[in-house]
Amino acid sequence: MDGMTSPTTQQAALAARYGAATPPAGPWNATIAGMVEHRSVRGYRPDPLPPGTLETLVAAAQSAATSSNLQTWSVVEVADSAARAVMTEVAGNQQHILECPLFLVFLADVGRNERMGIAEGKPLEGTPFLEAFLVASIDAALAAQNAVVAAESLGLSTVYIGALRNDTQRVAATLGLPPGTAGVFGLCVGYPKAGAEGEVKPRLPQSTILHRGRYDASGETAARAAYDAEMSAFSQRNEMAADTWTARVIARNGTIKALRGRDMLAAALRALGFPLK
Amino acid sequence: MDGMTSPTTQQAALAARYGAATPPAGPWNATIAGMVEHRSVRGYRPDPLPPGTLETLVAAAQSAATSSNLQTWSVVEVADSAARAVMTEVAGNQQHILECPLFLVFLADVGRNERMGIAEGKPLEGTPFLEAFLVASIDAALAAQNAVVAAESLGLSTVYIGALRNDTQRVAATLGLPPGTAGVFGLCVGYPKAGAEGEVKPRLPQSTILHRGRYDASGETAARAAYDAEMSAFSQRNEMAADTWTARVIARNGTIKALRGRDMLAAALRALGFPLK
Repeated sequence: MDGMTSPTTQQAALAARYGAATPPAGPWNATIAGMVEHRSVRGYRPDPLPPGTLETLVAAAQSAATSSNLQTWSVVEVADSAARAVMTEVAGNQQHILECPLFLVFLADVGRNERMGIAEGKPLEGTPFLEAFLVASIDAALAAQNAVVAAESLGLSTVYIGALRNDTQRVAATLGLPPGTAGVFGLCVGYPKAGAEGEVKPRLPQSTILHRGRYDASGETAARAAYDAEMSAFSQRNEMAADTWTARVIARNGTIKALRGRDMLAAALRALGFPLK
Repeated sequence: MDGMTSPTTQQAALAARYGAATPPAGPWNATIAGMVEHRSVRGYRPDPLPPGTLETLVAAAQSAATSSNLQTWSVVEVADSAARAVMTEVAGNQQHILECPLFLVFLADVGRNERMGIAEGKPLEGTPFLEAFLVASIDAALAAQNAVVAAESLGLSTVYIGALRNDTQRVAATLGLPPGTAGVFGLCVGYPKAGAEGEVKPRLPQSTILHRGRYDASGETAARAAYDAEMSAFSQRNEMAADTWTARVIARNGTIKALRGRDMLAAALRALGFPLK
């Protein structure tokens, strides 16, 4: 696409992402470099975005694939400060939700097509199933990721807010969501505060994530040990506790309490009109 | 990011995506143009991809955000022709699965972290919940979309294969998936056959998808009528039946039979080790 990226930059970007387990360098361009250099940002300046930015992000989002062109997602821009305060509280007091100039909530939305079916005298039999909720959530995720790539290509930063699922019903009530819709995650967009951008976070080696032909877990314990060392050093450099990745996963998923209400997600979705059959 | 895209190109790209409901032109660059010009391609030449392409796509995929850095997704490259034939059959005989030089199956994978918890003597209490499956599916979708954007930026085409969920258990058996993993969709990658690229598919107007402050369904019926006319003309131009969007959604979701087995998804996932509590 460009040819302007130097091999050094590519090597450095891959090394930042993978540490010692850097994969071989393949094809590369500025779009790919932008994605590989992604970091989630949790501190924003109040500076407004250029006019038309939201419409461009939505155009990118809508251009992602959507299952059978059903388009079972929507997005709500939340500008009102009282509504932002609710979102911040639901998400465990994440202040960047209040700070960022643009805050979006992406919805799984089967309600729109359900309303259409009723209006046409053909109520949709297919929407009460888990499949419909999954399709809607995947549609929303594909759309959101295009918006993220678009935002970052414009020099903006982002962070997803999965913690809106701590209280999916309160989010729905605050945004006036009709039946068959639910917020699956939020997204902050804006310019990072000084120091908020941080380092690229290392990921598990490709050998752990990418399987050839059949799933192969044989190398995962050794790969995890190496990654634990990478993540411990990364955490220490970034002034967090020098935890291993293993310790963090156990902290996050080890107990029901750590889910902070998300153990009730199925019940919340059923109350919002997703039977999940 | 570039500044080389002309306003004409931007206007044309937005018009192709939205028809008469083209939104105002905001910030723009080559990365965004690439996304807005996306089309799913269902016919591939056998030409192999440049060396290192898969590793680059996986690097882009792993660079997407992942909830709490849990990284609960994996991807299987399916090269074996017998396995490709199974995938093709599961997906209702979609020949492009056999044709494309690279076929990937993206997995929701909580099994890896479950194995870690057991190995550490701390079985994870958080993984039997619907939340864990949803996080894993969203992780997989964000990763896959980065791979798609990366592939398309390299001049490759793609199409998602959601129809692998017609028989999630057969896909799992074919790929040797361990408990706590399931294929959520496939992805074809390659060079389009002559004539297979097609037109950009119009989407619903932004007014239907993007809500300001609160969900607002008041304009959706009028917007749908306009979109039905756009889609009917699009379908006719592309040698398909001149169906409206409304007719297609009803055909796809109107009956349980039209789900082609996906009404059994919840049962299939439970059998694969996702209790979905």
